[in-house]
Amino acid sequence: MTESPQDAPRPTGPLDGVVVVDLGQIYNAPYATLLLALAGAQVIKVEPIAGEISRTRRLVNLGAGIAFYMLNSNKQCVTLNLKDPRGQRLLTELTDRADVVVENFRPGVMKRLGVGPEVLRARNPRLIYASGSGYGQTGVYRDLPAMDLTVQAMTGVVASTGFPEETPLKSGPALSDFLGGIHLYGAITTALYRQARTGEGAVLDVAMIDSVLPALMSNIGPFVAAGIEGRTPPPERTGNRQGGLAESPYNIYPTKDGHLALVCITEQHWLGLVAVMDRPELLTDPRYATKLGRIAAMDDVDALVADWTRTQDTEQAFAGLRAAGVVCAPVRSLGDVIADPYFRARGMIRDVEVETIGTLPLMHSPLHFADSARIPLESARGLGADNEAVYGGLPGYSSDLLETYRAEGVI
Amino acid sequence: MTESPQDAPRPTGPLDGVVVVDLGQIYNAPYATLLLALAGAQVIKVEPIAGEISRTRRLVNLGAGIAFYMLNSNKQCVTLNLKDPRGQRLLTELTDRADVVVENFRPGVMKRLGVGPEVLRARNPRLIYASGSGYGQTGVYRDLPAMDLTVQAMTGVVASTGFPEETPLKSGPALSDFLGGIHLYGAITTALYRQARTGEGAVLDVAMIDSVLPALMSNIGPFVAAGIEGRTPPPERTGNRQGGLAESPYNIYPTKDGHLALVCITEQHWLGLVAVMDRPELLTDPRYATKLGRIAAMDDVDALVADWTRTQDTEQAFAGLRAAGVVCAPVRSLGDVIADPYFRARGMIRDVEVETIGTLPLMHSPLHFADSARIPLESARGLGADNEAVYGGLPGYSSDLLETYRAEGVI
Repeated sequence: MTESPQDAPRPTGPLDGVVVVDLGQIYNAPYATLLLALAGAQVIKVEPIAGEISRTRRLVNLGAGIAFYMLNSNKQCVTLNLKDPRGQRLLTELTDRADVVVENFRPGVMKRLGVGPEVLRARNPRLIYASGSGYGQTGVYRDLPAMDLTVQAMTGVVASTGFPEETPLKSGPALSDFLGGIHLYGAITTALYRQARTGEGAVLDVAMIDSVLPALMSNIGPFVAAGIEGRTPPPERTGNRQGGLAESPYNIYPTKDGHLALVCITEQHWLGLVAVMDRPELLTDPRYATKLGRIAAMDDVDALVADWTRTQDTEQAFAGLRAAGVVCAPVRSLGDVIADPYFRARGMIRDVEVETIGTLPLMHSPLHFADSARIPLESARGLGADNEAVYGGLPGYSSDLLETYRAEGVI
Repeated sequence: MTESPQDAPRPTGPLDGVVVVDLGQIYNAPYATLLLALAGAQVIKVEPIAGEISRTRRLVNLGAGIAFYMLNSNKQCVTLNLKDPRGQRLLTELTDRADVVVENFRPGVMKRLGVGPEVLRARNPRLIYASGSGYGQTGVYRDLPAMDLTVQAMTGVVASTGFPEETPLKSGPALSDFLGGIHLYGAITTALYRQARTGEGAVLDVAMIDSVLPALMSNIGPFVAAGIEGRTPPPERTGNRQGGLAESPYNIYPTKDGHLALVCITEQHWLGLVAVMDRPELLTDPRYATKLGRIAAMDDVDALVADWTRTQDTEQAFAGLRAAGVVCAPVRSLGDVIADPYFRARGMIRDVEVETIGTLPLMHSPLHFADSARIPLESARGLGADNEAVYGGLPGYSSDLLETYRAEGVI
């Protein structure tokens, strides 16, 4: 028997067979469950009857609505009214058959709906009950509403971004949401490993505020050291200079047509830079002879690098410095980034036609298994598109009953 | 037999029994292996004879050196000369008995040393070979040296941080390193799950550039939408305003003694803010009657909120707005963050005495298993402190042979 291409087996993922009930909304939990789906898990996205809050954003603002499509590929989509007891029961019947349930409502919401961890795990002790939140399920900030901006403020991200003596700034990307989401993913897969080994379930409580903190280690270090050494702490934000002001050159420099990020850590980097700038006299200048000297003369070093970069085209300078082994990169615009063929060659971005919107650059998983083919990327499904397939597979839910549930706003 | 407290069982972790050989350096891979260790895995940190590059930083600059202690808790520390064939052989004997090997050298280094994935996995097919890198093991940027700043530049983080028409800025935290590190962790635990189920190993290739990209979805969305709708794209950076300029008020506002991040998404948030500001006349002002109106009058709305915040103490305004249900947070300094009792109550920070340095706020894992006790945090061990324990456990490595290896610079 010959195998035609369409009969070729669908690539399998490392999480094949894992069943996830996904109550996630906005960015945090949906990012975790996107990665679960792209690793092969069956993810059942459960939305309120009107759709998850970010599904309908496109109707008001397409720009804000596109993230929904980037975050919800490869999930099954069902609707469910969790305020109706019949809806709550349906949820428990789904989680009875699942390995994982994920939610990122405000802490306490699930319990009030009668579907908290105690209830669901009493029915299914293998269940991994995973909660994502801004400020954790315990502690003094538990009930504080969280958004990416406010978590950035609370964790020191804002304090450490921007120029000293000027307004503190948020980081452009939604890093609290996504650091929270990927840590939630890591907690879930860790619990899945134990579940596979021992059959145990787990209750996971992953907070954005905790997830952001480690990324500030290199900012916290100089502050703690100053305390130990009895010195005034260094400025919390240093513009584009190294956080501890302990490297030079290290900055973002203006070019003829943009900006270039450039760093010299080793002596070789500095020699490479001097050669590309064609300034051999700097090598005999005692001020720049050592790294400590270059750090002490940071303003002068930045000025002489910028004097050169201002005369250069960004991509041309990048190519020359790259060949000389200097650590550098162009400051790319979002347009440059999305168009970069690198991401397509690597399978990280796929251009997918999304109904009624157009072609969107959807993202695949950064968790790249180099020895397996990537799972095909499938665009987010319509609201309730999988109601029949998912609920109809549960015992006792006939088409007629589901029709009644639909008519009565349960699904 | 009674059990005295010191005989109480040590808390176990979900990854108990997993053995990891860790060749990680600096931030990226060491963060992944820190989380593995804090989840119960046995992590053997393999360092060059002179110590990992970040271990010795404290001798030059304590501030830059503290991150080493924050990243290397709960690992065993051995030294190994990978340029010596006897060292390479020792590494293979370690990985023969391991579940995971992790490295973040420049792509190609491990292969040149004769310990690439093909070699190690031919000996141990269950082995998960995990590589972290700036730009991936494949693709056009593979050989480009990567640092957090340059990856931020390449991915659009810099382009999207700062004020429009002003210098683009890096994000304060080392987000490329840490997003890369936690995605590497997620890939490893995903592969461990499959290994537990099927016995298969894996080759993992996790790049910082891929790991940062999803966090920019909310910035990329408005850009892509403008293309679809034939409009000029919105500014790439919007200071502290919402990325798509689609919310108002949404900003960081000056107070008497600092700054406050404040966001109104719903009508309730706006009503709460107006009540706390005691400006009831705003409710009857047609310019501010709807969210679309407030967005259109963004400059005026920001000015009137700032007029109020400038008269307020940060923590007092935070308390009042919090009680009224408005999404807000103080812009906390790094000092405030590290001192916050929240992190200690939650077990995320433990103050640990580190020999010859002093008390350091070490971090535990954001992957919080709510139904288990946290593993005790143990400060980073000395260079080669576990050589005898680790190598002595391999067949054929007597104390005499290890003494010879030490004398000849193999370990």
